[in-house]
Amino acid sequence: MERPHELPPAAPAADEAAPRAAATGTLYGVGMGPGDPDYLTVRAVRVLERAHHLVHFCKAGRRGNARTIADAVVRDAGREWALPYPLTTELPPDDPAYVAALAAFYDDAASRLADALGAGRDVAILSEGDPFFYGSFMHLWRRLKDRFPVEVVPGVTGMSGCWTRAGTPITWGDDVLTVLPATLPRARLVAHLRAADAAVVMKLGRHLPKVRAALAEAGLLARAVYVERGTMAGEVVAALADKPDDGAPYFSMVLVPGEGRRP
Amino acid sequence: MERPHELPPAAPAADEAAPRAAATGTLYGVGMGPGDPDYLTVRAVRVLERAHHLVHFCKAGRRGNARTIADAVVRDAGREWALPYPLTTELPPDDPAYVAALAAFYDDAASRLADALGAGRDVAILSEGDPFFYGSFMHLWRRLKDRFPVEVVPGVTGMSGCWTRAGTPITWGDDVLTVLPATLPRARLVAHLRAADAAVVMKLGRHLPKVRAALAEAGLLARAVYVERGTMAGEVVAALADKPDDGAPYFSMVLVPGEGRRP
Ligand SMILES: C[S@@+](CC[C@H](N)C(=O)[O-])C[C@H]1O[C@@H](n2cnc3c(N)ncnc32)[C@H](O)[C@@H]1O
Ligand SMILES: C[S@@+](CC[C@H](N)C(=O)[O-])C[C@H]1O[C@@H](n2cnc3c(N)ncnc32)[C@H](O)[C@@H]1O
Repeated sequence: MERPHELPPAAPAADEAAPRAAATGTLYGVGMGPGDPDYLTVRAVRVLERAHHLVHFCKAGRRGNARTIADAVVRDAGREWALPYPLTTELPPDDPAYVAALAAFYDDAASRLADALGAGRDVAILSEGDPFFYGSFMHLWRRLKDRFPVEVVPGVTGMSGCWTRAGTPITWGDDVLTVLPATLPRARLVAHLRAADAAVVMKLGRHLPKVRAALAEAGLLARAVYVERGTMAGEVVAALADKPDDGAPYFSMVLVPGEGRRP
Repeated sequence: MERPHELPPAAPAADEAAPRAAATGTLYGVGMGPGDPDYLTVRAVRVLERAHHLVHFCKAGRRGNARTIADAVVRDAGREWALPYPLTTELPPDDPAYVAALAAFYDDAASRLADALGAGRDVAILSEGDPFFYGSFMHLWRRLKDRFPVEVVPGVTGMSGCWTRAGTPITWGDDVLTVLPATLPRARLVAHLRAADAAVVMKLGRHLPKVRAALAEAGLLARAVYVERGTMAGEVVAALADKPDDGAPYFSMVLVPGEGRRP
């Protein structure tokens, strides 16, 4: 494919000097957008149609969400390659055992992808939303970028899909937007929410009660909108005040739209 | 077109009750992405191909950037409709004369678009990046949304295009991302930069020296990356330390990539 256009501003010197076999494949990080396959980019569709391997992360025995988005484009299943995570979310993400297991998982996946790339196969990693905005792609990218050509295809983020479906602009005029992982301690959430004009709280899941309390403490509960599976099947949009605390899934977030200048 | 899917969580009651003529056109806010037409979504291409009017904002006598992105899709110029802004950036954006002139401009544009929509014409407003993330579309949307069906097509944001081309993930793990308009006073920029793990500073232009000083004060200058016209013709990517203070154009931003958890 024609555009391995990565421009690292501060690439290690070794990168420029590294010899590259002519037959080497390209690593693609493909932004799959928020869920609706109509929000794939033209470039993403093209890479999905052509890559030799289509790789997606998933829970063991389940299909990843990014793979479901690709259904609209991918007809032959023969190119698929699932990477089941070693653990679910039982351990806290900063537990050393969790970090070690994840590191081994990424190391192993990267070495298998390196074999394919070294054999001249183009490998596309399907990434929900935008590949460089949170997410798992960057952990493989970090391990492979100095050895193989890389093309990242930016995507519509999950949050853009969510504020679109909530029917509300997120920022106006000179609004400051802060994006917060719901995993942060409540006090840090409150401090950030107080300083921001607009906010997005991602990775909600079981943290919803804490996030609700933080929003209330920051005086923002009345403005908060809850979006679950934005632009996907089973989408839910509601005022957060109307959403009970039980059962926010992984694909959910809270939006606090800004109220800046409106000439 | 098939999906006027706006779901306002707190729509005014008048909205639901408003009668709609069968012949009414739909107002589209079309996210045009960061610049490279390959980053248009499948949905955006479809709307651009079909809408009766393609509206873009511009400076008097100049072509708007969103219109240039559409070149790849739009062949007949007959559907075009340019909306030249009343003033350039000579007046500060909070000057009452500037606000009044802009309000009159949006009022007038909205009433002309309402005539077209009322006559059953589908009107697409071409919006750089994502339509609900800063930008001018929302000022027309606010004036028209309760009278006409609306579909917003989310887009890849300018910042996603820029961090893609800078070759750097913007957020890892539990990083907090703050998006700042460069128009803010230096002290506020510093406070926000100190609290964030990752940052994007938009609307750079003549504010570059102030932004550089704020980054230095927050201890972030060495990590800052400058991107001009990301994914467009004439793209520039550089360490901010290597970019002189003169002449940052409107389409430029500074990125401070996060340094969060990397298993
Ligand atoms: C690891 S982050 C990945 C973000 C992704 N790379 C992006 O650009 O949106 C996963 C979080 O994104 C949010 N998310 C992504 N897509 C979403 C959607 N369609 N609806 C609701 N939340 C979504 C959820 O908060 C979820 O916990
Ligand atoms: C009024 S905001 C519009 C943002 C747009 N709606 C979006 O989603 O990116 C304009 C600012 O976006 C930034 N911007 C948008 N696209 C860009 C690009 N391709 N390269 C550099 N900066 C860009 C610049 O900082 C510019 O001043």
